[in-house]
Order: sequence, then structure tokens, then C-alpha cells
Amino acid sequence: MPNDSSTRLPVIKIVDNEEFAINDALAIEEPLEIRLEYGDVSQRQIQNISVTMRTPGSDAELALGFLFTEGIIRKQEDIESAEHCFIACAENKENVIQVSLKEGVEPVLNNTERNFYTTSSCGVCGKASINSIKTVSFYNNSATENQVNADLLYQLPIILQKHQKVFADTGGLHASALFTLNGVLLLVREDVGRHNALDKLIGAALNKNLLPLDQYILLLSGRISFELVQKAAMAGISIITAVGAPSSLAVQLAEEFNITLVGFLRDLRFNIYTQPKRILLSKYEDSY
Amino acid sequence: MPNDSSTRLPVIKIVDNEEFAINDALAIEEPLEIRLEYGDVSQRQIQNISVTMRTPGSDAELALGFLFTEGIIRKQEDIESAEHCFIACAENKENVIQVSLKEGVEPVLNNTERNFYTTSSCGVCGKASINSIKTVSFYNNSATENQVNADLLYQLPIILQKHQKVFADTGGLHASALFTLNGVLLLVREDVGRHNALDKLIGAALNKNLLPLDQYILLLSGRISFELVQKAAMAGISIITAVGAPSSLAVQLAEEFNITLVGFLRDLRFNIYTQPKRILLSKYEDSY
Repeated sequence: MPNDSSTRLPVIKIVDNEEFAINDALAIEEPLEIRLEYGDVSQRQIQNISVTMRTPGSDAELALGFLFTEGIIRKQEDIESAEHCFIACAENKENVIQVSLKEGVEPVLNNTERNFYTTSSCGVCGKASINSIKTVSFYNNSATENQVNADLLYQLPIILQKHQKVFADTGGLHASALFTLNGVLLLVREDVGRHNALDKLIGAALNKNLLPLDQYILLLSGRISFELVQKAAMAGISIITAVGAPSSLAVQLAEEFNITLVGFLRDLRFNIYTQPKRILLSKYEDSY
Repeated sequence: MPNDSSTRLPVIKIVDNEEFAINDALAIEEPLEIRLEYGDVSQRQIQNISVTMRTPGSDAELALGFLFTEGIIRKQEDIESAEHCFIACAENKENVIQVSLKEGVEPVLNNTERNFYTTSSCGVCGKASINSIKTVSFYNNSATENQVNADLLYQLPIILQKHQKVFADTGGLHASALFTLNGVLLLVREDVGRHNALDKLIGAALNKNLLPLDQYILLLSGRISFELVQKAAMAGISIITAVGAPSSLAVQLAEEFNITLVGFLRDLRFNIYTQPKRILLSKYEDSY
């Protein structure tokens, strides 16, 4: 399979006022239009749901993950197909993807991204945003009792780094990774947009019928926004770890969904923001 | 002025299996609804334009910058006011901002973000996205002849770092900064969303009647996406520098707008992706 996630361009590299002509690898960014086809056989309709700027690759997973984390589709069995539309334009042959639902399956189209952030009853605020996700999500991890060892967490970014090939080339991609509770890397997805990387990962998990993801650890290569916790909550994830910092609303949403939120995971360190009960520390005996 | 951009939360810090209870600073993230009021006196109407997750602070600038870079408003003189709406909800008192246009000024509401990425004639592709921005933007830097020295560029991230106070506290914010061609820092804006940080900066510049920004240097604290170059192009910026990597489409758009694009600017190094004519290298005489 050719790698469509990066490209090489001639670049002038300057090092302390010395000039070098090099070929640099860049992460590809292109628009993707997500379309949804649904309805009875006699009355199929196609609706344009969203356009996102993404790195090509795993487009079907991206579309499925997006539709699932927005609450528009609810389960893997409802999906008939997810395929590129080849439209009469040489430039855009892989930039439209159509998800078709099985006959009679109705999408939930009032759960748009917009509605997550604003409700008519209360107006716009973080609390309203959290409440509207609570009404849409299937999962809440209040009964999830899994635990992981701190020593295992330290290793996750090191394992991810070895697998983040396009990032190593370009320095331009975010990654989302799914690990088992034993620290085995199960899935990695990369994208110029961190929300896309997570949508791709959740779409892949949906395809593999892994949901809810309460028995896995999510690792994010960057910072933790509200939107990323929202997507993780929709997929039932109980442990989110990240190399970067969380926002205030990301922490509040994680607390509401009983998700363990770990940030600044690097160099034998991390911070636990919510639900510390799932993190175990090794207590070494003082042997002398 | 109190700092509403960050908050402190109790956090468990783990360092090599040792546990510490600390108070950690987090970047605040809250939704902001942007509303636009326009029309004749007899028929004023209010339209809900967008909801963005942002760090509170500079909300009016964010709204103005967003409306301007989306092509919805075209000049500073068209704006009557930009103010928070205090709605009857204790939680959201600063999360709605209304921009009012002067009587008779019509907004350009077909230039939505969506239309930037897809045109009916060609479908969805990077080239179509670039072409649609070309039809909306006032500016193109083909005649802009300013130049900056590499030695000056090396200093910009160091100067920014000294001024990025909330980032230093939280590790959670993106920054956009505007420098004069002499390397004087003019404006800095921060946000959990990098597009918001740039919208705030451009809104502030619009308020100060500085547009077009072809005689300034833009510095971005992170990576360079298509969307960030689009916003810079709308504001007439001719030199974009960034600490991180650009995407493929960011480079193409910069080339089309005759923008000099510099990435990986750190430690006496950078890469020039487009229009190298504006970057001068110091050639030291060998004196011994």
C-alpha cells in the first residue's frame, strides 16, 4: 500500500545562517466530505453531514468514528457500507466518503456537534455541554473497576513513539492509540487533526465490534480538549492518558463520566486529574 | 483584571511511583456562541453564526476575527459594537457575544467555513478550497517586498515564550503573536484552540485598524494547518513563522498567496517552504 499520509517537497533549510537545499516530508492535509445515505428502499436519501480537513488514510473509519461520536449512528450492525464516491473531478477522487445505513435504520440527526455545545433551555455553558452529552451517550463508567499500574503507564508513550511512523517523518501529526490493560498496543491512528485521529481510532474499534472500550487504555499524543474527552466518553473509554495538558472542561467531563484522566505522561511522571482509583503505584520494599 | 484564562485544581502528581498532592493550573475551556445582528433599523435581525470552544478572554476580538477571516464582515468601519449578552443563566453569563453591524451593512453569509472547503463546481479538494479563498480574500502579497533577517527570526520564539504567561502556568495553550519587521512584539493572544488564538489576534488588529498585515511577521506556537494559513491570508499577512511543521495544503495555500512560510523555527534553525525571497542570511566575513 502506498503511503498517502505524507509527501516530499523541496525546502530550504537554514542552520545558523547556512543554507541547505533538502527534500522535507510533510503531512498531507486534504478535505473529506462525509455523506450519509439512509431511508427505505423506495426513498433513499443522501445527506451531506460534514467536511473535515484530514490526512488521507482510514477515511471509512474516520467517517464511522465521527458519526458515532456525534451520536448520529449508534451501532456497528446498522451500517451497510462506508465507501469513497468517485466523482468526475481528477483532483478530488478520494475526498468524498459515503456511509450507507441498512434499510429502515434512521440516523439521529439532531445530535449535531452544535447541539453538544448549546441547549435551548440553558444557553451556552460548559455545564450544558456536559449535560447534553450525558443524554446522548450509552456509557458511563461508574461500575468499571479495572486498574493499571503506574509502571505500565510510563511505557505507553515510548511504545507509541516507535509506531508513529508518519509523525517521525513529518513532525506534523497527532496520534491516538488504544492499549490493552496489559499495555499491548492494539490500534494507532494518525492525523493532522487530533479529533480526526481519535475518530479514526473509534471508527476502527467500531468496525472490530470492540465497543464499549472500558477495558482499554486510550493514549493521546498531545493535549486533552473537551472534544476529545467527549469522543472518548461516547466510546465508553474508562482510562484516558495523554502526553499533554488537559483543559478545565476536559477534566469536568471526565469526572462526570467516571473516566480516569491522566496528563503530562512522560519521563516516569504523570498527573492524575480524575478517578485515581484505577491507578496503582508499585511500593518497593526497602531491602537493606 | 482577574485572570479568567486559567484555574487551579487539586491533582495527584506521580513521580517515579511517589505520590504528591498538588494544585495544578489548567487552561479554561468554555463554549462561546457568536451572534451577528444586522439589517435596517426597522428590521434588525440576529443570526447565530457559530459556537466555538475557547479560553475566555478577548471574546470580542475572537468574534471579530472569526467573522472577518470567514469573509462574513469585511472592514472595521462596518462594526457598531461587539458585546457579551447577559442571559438569564448563572453558568453562561459570559459565553454569548453579539457583534452588531451598522445600519444597512449586509454581512456576506454565504462565505461560511463550509464553503471554503467545498465548491459545487468541482466538489471537495484542496485546489477547490484554495480557489474559493482566492475569490473571497481582499489581499495577495505578490507586490509585497519586505525582508527580514534570519538572525531576527531566531529571536521571535524566545520573545514569545517570555510573554506566554498562561501557557507557562498550564502547558495547555496555543499562541499567535504579531511582530514588526524589526522584531518588536506588538500583539500576543492565547487559546486552547490554535484557530481561536489567531482569530483573537486578527480581531485585535482589525480593532486597531492595522489591516492588511503585510508589514508584520506572524508567529504561531505550534503546527501550521490549512485553516491557519487561510486566516493569515484573509488578513493580508506576508510572513508566517511557526515553531512546528506545516501540512501539505498549508504550503500550497501560502504559495498561492505569495506568503513566505517558515516552519520548525527553533534553536538557530528553520525551514523555508515558500517565497524565500523575504528571508536574508547574514554573511559574516572570515576575519582571520
